[in-house]
Amino acid sequence: MTDAAQLTADLIRCPSVTPEEGGALILLEKLLSEAGFECVRVDRGEVSNLFARWGAKGHARSFGFNGHTDVVPVGDEAAWTVAPFGAEIRDGVLYGRGATDMKSGVAAFAAAAVDFVRETPPDGAVILAITGDEEGDAIDGTTALLDYMEQAGERMSVCLVGEPTCPNTMGEMMKIGRRGSMSAWFTVTGVQGHSAYPHRARNPLPAMARLMDRLASHELDKGSEHFDASTLAVVTIDTGNPATNVIPAQCSGAVNIRFNDLHSGASLTEWLQAEADRVAEEFGVAIEMKVKVSGESFLTPPGPLSDLVASAVAAETGVTPELSTTGGTSDARFIKDHCPVVEFGLVGRTMHQVDECVPVEQIHQLKAIYGRILRDFFA
Amino acid sequence: MTDAAQLTADLIRCPSVTPEEGGALILLEKLLSEAGFECVRVDRGEVSNLFARWGAKGHARSFGFNGHTDVVPVGDEAAWTVAPFGAEIRDGVLYGRGATDMKSGVAAFAAAAVDFVRETPPDGAVILAITGDEEGDAIDGTTALLDYMEQAGERMSVCLVGEPTCPNTMGEMMKIGRRGSMSAWFTVTGVQGHSAYPHRARNPLPAMARLMDRLASHELDKGSEHFDASTLAVVTIDTGNPATNVIPAQCSGAVNIRFNDLHSGASLTEWLQAEADRVAEEFGVAIEMKVKVSGESFLTPPGPLSDLVASAVAAETGVTPELSTTGGTSDARFIKDHCPVVEFGLVGRTMHQVDECVPVEQIHQLKAIYGRILRDFFA
Repeated sequence: MTDAAQLTADLIRCPSVTPEEGGALILLEKLLSEAGFECVRVDRGEVSNLFARWGAKGHARSFGFNGHTDVVPVGDEAAWTVAPFGAEIRDGVLYGRGATDMKSGVAAFAAAAVDFVRETPPDGAVILAITGDEEGDAIDGTTALLDYMEQAGERMSVCLVGEPTCPNTMGEMMKIGRRGSMSAWFTVTGVQGHSAYPHRARNPLPAMARLMDRLASHELDKGSEHFDASTLAVVTIDTGNPATNVIPAQCSGAVNIRFNDLHSGASLTEWLQAEADRVAEEFGVAIEMKVKVSGESFLTPPGPLSDLVASAVAAETGVTPELSTTGGTSDARFIKDHCPVVEFGLVGRTMHQVDECVPVEQIHQLKAIYGRILRDFFA
Repeated sequence: MTDAAQLTADLIRCPSVTPEEGGALILLEKLLSEAGFECVRVDRGEVSNLFARWGAKGHARSFGFNGHTDVVPVGDEAAWTVAPFGAEIRDGVLYGRGATDMKSGVAAFAAAAVDFVRETPPDGAVILAITGDEEGDAIDGTTALLDYMEQAGERMSVCLVGEPTCPNTMGEMMKIGRRGSMSAWFTVTGVQGHSAYPHRARNPLPAMARLMDRLASHELDKGSEHFDASTLAVVTIDTGNPATNVIPAQCSGAVNIRFNDLHSGASLTEWLQAEADRVAEEFGVAIEMKVKVSGESFLTPPGPLSDLVASAVAAETGVTPELSTTGGTSDARFIKDHCPVVEFGLVGRTMHQVDECVPVEQIHQLKAIYGRILRDFFA
């Protein structure tokens, strides 16, 4: 039996702040190799990733797990009451950066997979795609693993991402999709001048105010079958003009949109551009727009995969998980183009925070759930 | 005969950048004392001012001149083609900081006054109220002189401010009033949050955008008999949030208003507060407002004083000056509470700029105009 809590502690002691490998993938590679997994380090750019497969390549029945060993920075270390990479246990709770997000998740599915293939070798393949670049730009992480798999003829039938998904209580929520996320930056350029002679200037600020008011007031939708309503947040407007007798030449602003399956990055870009053009014409200013789509929305409709996960969760915890599409983005946005993907993990309340921690019992429970999912999948 | 151009050059050589006296007031005090003026240095705070009177104190017929010897900083000295305090003459043009704003004006009215009282001693008083704090906060300048006069029983029947008033051609414009000026700073406070969960935050930015859009769109008035329409300029909006996944807790913004005699600082403050309160309620945010009224609008209606100045200008230049209320603020805003006040001076095009300069001939012309005004006033 592989001790998932011990493995989590060992992983926490690897200081793998993105993009540092920190020893975490080396540790996992050793564990998985010894259990008969074929391991390939898929490094790209400054990022390290690990691909591991037990069973035959390209098997029609391949269960995949995805997760990451990189963690966000410690932040204000003085505010921590424990050593962030010390993996200290107090009253049954394991502390450390990555305790919930998501070294416990990786440890739980690695331990479950190792024990499963040892105890009941399946007719099929178990794949672990573990990245070191989820908290960073995510350019050379899961995408690099998927690129490798494509080129090597590796294939997952379904995939479970082990990110924390439960808001408060173990088992209460799994994710069957995610909203898309994009940001747009606007720069409005007018003509500088003196506040006493505004007719000689062309003030970019009223145009920016109008644009942001319109964008923030617009109802993108009322939600769809599996998604909440899309949202737009104005995140900043900046000018940097300290002089009240000066009308500035330029100001900038940005919005962030979380959108459901009624939109795409392209359709929203078109809408934003039209609104910017309209305001530019109304005010006689120039508006430049830059857009970054971090991820499109996606949905794995309720079906065999979500049923499989939900029943395993219910069996182990007594709680039937809600099928949710809320929250930020995750690497599932890349995997959705490869195979059906859902997400289930433990309670994420302390992720990214000081004194990040996880009850040891929850790690064992999560390993049990993942083990049951594997047994049910290959049954 | 006092050479006003030579006096201007001597004053330029005094480096009297606010609040430095730089020797300028000492020079004038010597000149005026020798001509029989009673001089009092009225210093307050770090600022020096000079009060000078020829004739009996409190005489019912007292003509006052107001001006300042302090100058704005040199700025980028490397960009000057002359020494900023060198008073170099090239092709009949005198160069230096303060050449137009307004050592030439002070020199012209001081020279005109000295010659006038020597040549045709009037039955009345000539008063020169010269400040060293017009370009700064103007808290301890002309107001200090007026406070002194009040307390000492000194009185001007009318006052002419010698600031540059002509946009392009000598004689084309005098000022019979000025718009008021005020600024208002707004701080909108909401609740910080994650862009993916805007319902858990309270974003201050849409409220700021709405407020600024409303203020900028509002027509304050269409102008009044002697004034252009009042204007409002949004001068800055700032947040300083670099993270698109964060909804900020706070943002700030400012507007500057130039207002005519249909408004007052108080009436506009009331309007701004009402608009801020309305938006605060609509968006459920807190909006704090801070206001500074730099000057109320004022008007010396066309009449004996403006007629006196206009006819002297026309006689010396052949140009009848327009009676204007345009432009920024000036110390006339303080004097208007003491006596009727108008402003006339030379062409101000290079004021505050690199290579500030004035044609020598224009200084002589300005002295001639001021001399004629004195003769006509006491005739």
